[in-house]
Amino acid sequence: MIFHLCFNIFAVDISIMTKKKTHSESLHHKKGKKDISVGVVGSGSFATAIVKMLVENCKVVHWCVRSEFVKGAIELRGHNPTYLTAVNFNLKNLKLTTDINELISACDIVVLATPSIYLSDTLDKMKCDYKEKIFVSAIKGIIPKVNDVVAHYLRDEFKIGFRNQAVIAGPCHAEEVAMERLSYLTIATVEDKVAEKLESIFNSDFIKVHGSKDILGNEYSAILKNIFAIGAGIASGLGYGDNFTAVFVSNAIREMETFLEAIYEEPRDVNESAYLGDLLVTAYSLFSRNRNLGNLIGKGYTVKSAIQSMNMVAEGYYAADSIYKTSKQKGLKLPIIDCIYGILYEGKNAEKQFRKLTAKLN
Amino acid sequence: MIFHLCFNIFAVDISIMTKKKTHSESLHHKKGKKDISVGVVGSGSFATAIVKMLVENCKVVHWCVRSEFVKGAIELRGHNPTYLTAVNFNLKNLKLTTDINELISACDIVVLATPSIYLSDTLDKMKCDYKEKIFVSAIKGIIPKVNDVVAHYLRDEFKIGFRNQAVIAGPCHAEEVAMERLSYLTIATVEDKVAEKLESIFNSDFIKVHGSKDILGNEYSAILKNIFAIGAGIASGLGYGDNFTAVFVSNAIREMETFLEAIYEEPRDVNESAYLGDLLVTAYSLFSRNRNLGNLIGKGYTVKSAIQSMNMVAEGYYAADSIYKTSKQKGLKLPIIDCIYGILYEGKNAEKQFRKLTAKLN
Repeated sequence: MIFHLCFNIFAVDISIMTKKKTHSESLHHKKGKKDISVGVVGSGSFATAIVKMLVENCKVVHWCVRSEFVKGAIELRGHNPTYLTAVNFNLKNLKLTTDINELISACDIVVLATPSIYLSDTLDKMKCDYKEKIFVSAIKGIIPKVNDVVAHYLRDEFKIGFRNQAVIAGPCHAEEVAMERLSYLTIATVEDKVAEKLESIFNSDFIKVHGSKDILGNEYSAILKNIFAIGAGIASGLGYGDNFTAVFVSNAIREMETFLEAIYEEPRDVNESAYLGDLLVTAYSLFSRNRNLGNLIGKGYTVKSAIQSMNMVAEGYYAADSIYKTSKQKGLKLPIIDCIYGILYEGKNAEKQFRKLTAKLN
Repeated sequence: MIFHLCFNIFAVDISIMTKKKTHSESLHHKKGKKDISVGVVGSGSFATAIVKMLVENCKVVHWCVRSEFVKGAIELRGHNPTYLTAVNFNLKNLKLTTDINELISACDIVVLATPSIYLSDTLDKMKCDYKEKIFVSAIKGIIPKVNDVVAHYLRDEFKIGFRNQAVIAGPCHAEEVAMERLSYLTIATVEDKVAEKLESIFNSDFIKVHGSKDILGNEYSAILKNIFAIGAGIASGLGYGDNFTAVFVSNAIREMETFLEAIYEEPRDVNESAYLGDLLVTAYSLFSRNRNLGNLIGKGYTVKSAIQSMNMVAEGYYAADSIYKTSKQKGLKLPIIDCIYGILYEGKNAEKQFRKLTAKLN
């Protein structure tokens, strides 16, 4: 059964929308900052957004970035040189490193926020004792090395049990976190104590945290939604309109439910924000890189050139291969997944594939 | 149990997107046109879109418009003078009238497509024999006179049984029908023969029809989604972003499910296009008048001035009053409905109401 912790009782202050804070509020935040040792691994846009969330509550946030260049640039300018450059950090709140072992040794909680394709390179360098640490995955993709989700990868390759794991999900574009626009996170973990600790460091004026026990469901749904967002983008690029997109998304959430039930049966409600909400924000928002990748393909770019033209990794591209194969192994009928796989990996024509797909939706 | 008729087997032609038709296709359409006598009541944008759908399949479509001015303008110019003016009709396919009795007497199938607030004025004029006719409601609102949905109004006031009724639902902005962008309709009726007949006159290159037996569920969901769309618009006007909208909509579909179950229990899947899809297109599309009404209110217009500034009726405004009262009678907890009712009818401040609402969503 899904267990929900509703952590937020009071309404957020209107400063969320206006991005103005009163002096007393700033003081309040400084006073309330916590000594929990937490670190973030990764230097992309979502990693940067997570660091921004955490400095609201934690005195120091450890941050392991990918290169000395990025580290130096943040130390020099106070912001990430490439992603969410408008987010300025107080360097007193950051402890930057490029050494994963240094970060893990210093932290009780480690948030993994690299692109999925780089995670194994990063974790293969772990030599320190990490067995008692809490690993929180903010990664929304498949690990290519093992063709599996992060939760299984951590458990099987590093013997990190589910009790020491959590997954961050929910409709949360990094760009809107940067603007301090109210966003909701779902944090999935089976341990109540871990849930409480994570809630206390993420919950803030502009972040509302809810709990869930559905680690695998949240992880897979975050992966699936990226593939569906590529599809929504292709539809848009091909000239389909809002009426069709609505039908497409309502079919996508049903395919998601079918897949999740086959992978890990649980009486979850896929209309909760972590599942449907995350799908919606990815399929509809112009901030979505997966949607943008699809849009380019729909407009006639080859898959290769569309990928090359983007500055960021579109996780859905890599996920489509893995999810398609898993769905076939399980004998599932998922017309949208099949359609997108055909376009991305079998060189099929997007226009023709979507024409066929329209007859399968309802 | 929901019974679904999947009428469409083959993919639509790509002419849907390009809006170009080959000569042979045009011939095919002319050859295949049907002699079924069908009429449309109403001259707004959705009524005009429905006439456009029907002339694809029917030799003649009867059309009862609201005034001699509108009738004369269509006869002179070949298009509706106010709504969907880009849709040009061949006058040979139309039989225009302003007399509801003339239309009903001439037709086996009558599609009602007036704003809900004008329906009783129109039907009170009925003097002809209408007992054997099929009444199809394309109205997405509450009838103020009886504070009830169209299906109940037709049954109770005019003794038109559910067997002689159908409801048109689904994500279908009139503006996109005008552009011949692929759209899906759900037609709900308990009679298979009625379903078959309606499918044959609505299904076309750019319209895909699916069947349902859930007349009341489809009617109420079409009404509820307009209220939620006002809410999505208010959120946008207040400065909330895509992350919040996704959470809002995922809560809205759960409120819809709660309401529908309380009104008329049926094992329906609210993630089907007629329910979720219709909510999505209304909450996300800039074509949505209900969303636009909300957006004005969110930006600081008074409710009265926001309504006055719009050229079209925003059904959700009238529906909010009725749905709120029904939800209270049933003892339902629907935070979004409560919030919007407070803003629209109790003069409550939108900013404060939404700040409170944010604490109730998850």
